[in-house]
Amino acid sequence: MPSSAFRNAPDEAPTRTAEVFRAAAELMFEKGYGATSIGDIAQAVGMTKAGLYHHISGKQDMLFQILNHAIDEAERMVTTPVRLIDDPEQRLRQLMRLQIQGSLERGLAFTALFSEINHLPPAQQMEIRSRVREQLDLIRGTLLELADQGRIRELDADIATMMILNVFTGIARWKYTDIASDREHLIQEAIAYTMAAILKPKK
Amino acid sequence: MPSSAFRNAPDEAPTRTAEVFRAAAELMFEKGYGATSIGDIAQAVGMTKAGLYHHISGKQDMLFQILNHAIDEAERMVTTPVRLIDDPEQRLRQLMRLQIQGSLERGLAFTALFSEINHLPPAQQMEIRSRVREQLDLIRGTLLELADQGRIRELDADIATMMILNVFTGIARWKYTDIASDREHLIQEAIAYTMAAILKPKK
Repeated sequence: MPSSAFRNAPDEAPTRTAEVFRAAAELMFEKGYGATSIGDIAQAVGMTKAGLYHHISGKQDMLFQILNHAIDEAERMVTTPVRLIDDPEQRLRQLMRLQIQGSLERGLAFTALFSEINHLPPAQQMEIRSRVREQLDLIRGTLLELADQGRIRELDADIATMMILNVFTGIARWKYTDIASDREHLIQEAIAYTMAAILKPKK
Repeated sequence: MPSSAFRNAPDEAPTRTAEVFRAAAELMFEKGYGATSIGDIAQAVGMTKAGLYHHISGKQDMLFQILNHAIDEAERMVTTPVRLIDDPEQRLRQLMRLQIQGSLERGLAFTALFSEINHLPPAQQMEIRSRVREQLDLIRGTLLELADQGRIRELDADIATMMILNVFTGIARWKYTDIASDREHLIQEAIAYTMAAILKPKK
């Protein structure tokens, strides 16, 4: 588990921490990482720059902590619960539901910010990539399980995994709020589209 | 057709223009639009800042011209030829093939840079969005035609259109060069995945 100065700060409730990460993530997503200064972030989260530097060592550290926070949340809310589901098709359906729901509720910026990963130093990039890889392996492993059971058509599991990931990152980037306004409809359509793409048609 | 100082410059061959846009687009994609300066761009394209200012009025103008150039290219290489294909399924297959091929050959940065559109002034954003909308309408119209012919399963054509767009933007963002190394395999898998997702299964 990576260290997080924010998460361990005894004087801040977890909700406040999540709020700080969310505001910072949304700002970085809107303005772009390169154009966002620590001063901008401090203003967005309602802190002084000095107050912010008490928790993070700089902008890179903020991005690193936000991405770790986003993965922590995805593990807690999505991957950990769905690993308990025995049937691979149900596991994948529930993974998609929880991931899209969480992204729409907790902030699309968290998902979208992963494209800024190249701004981190190599060691931190590797740490984040290996954590993301674990989540991708859950999708890939589920596809391979379905393949073993003869339930999916012939496909390249690596490419199909990226196609499913595209759904999550795509929704985070669309900004077509009219399409995403009916969340349940969007979730059902995204799952139905993906299941039709991978499963063998029912006879 | 939007004006382009580069395109109309009599002293530059079209290939040189495309090279300048490509180098600038790749730089903006790698560093992020916000962190890229006109000096960086001039260096990347092998021009002086003064030389560059001869063609563009600033960084925003460069982004605007790059996006228009990317859409011009997509129109010339993808949408114009595929509009001639009568059968909607073949039209969609060919659109995906040409779009992915073009993106892999002419530079993924062009596709990926569209997420920086919010850095443009409102009038230019509207112009780019309406040109992108035209391309999306070609996909959406093709889906509706397939629906009229009873060839696709019941689906939301707006959401399915975005899912297909996600394939293009996703491939541009993956950077998993191992996955994209066999281009023909990637193209075939992406088309097969999409066709399985939308078409009624063959009896």
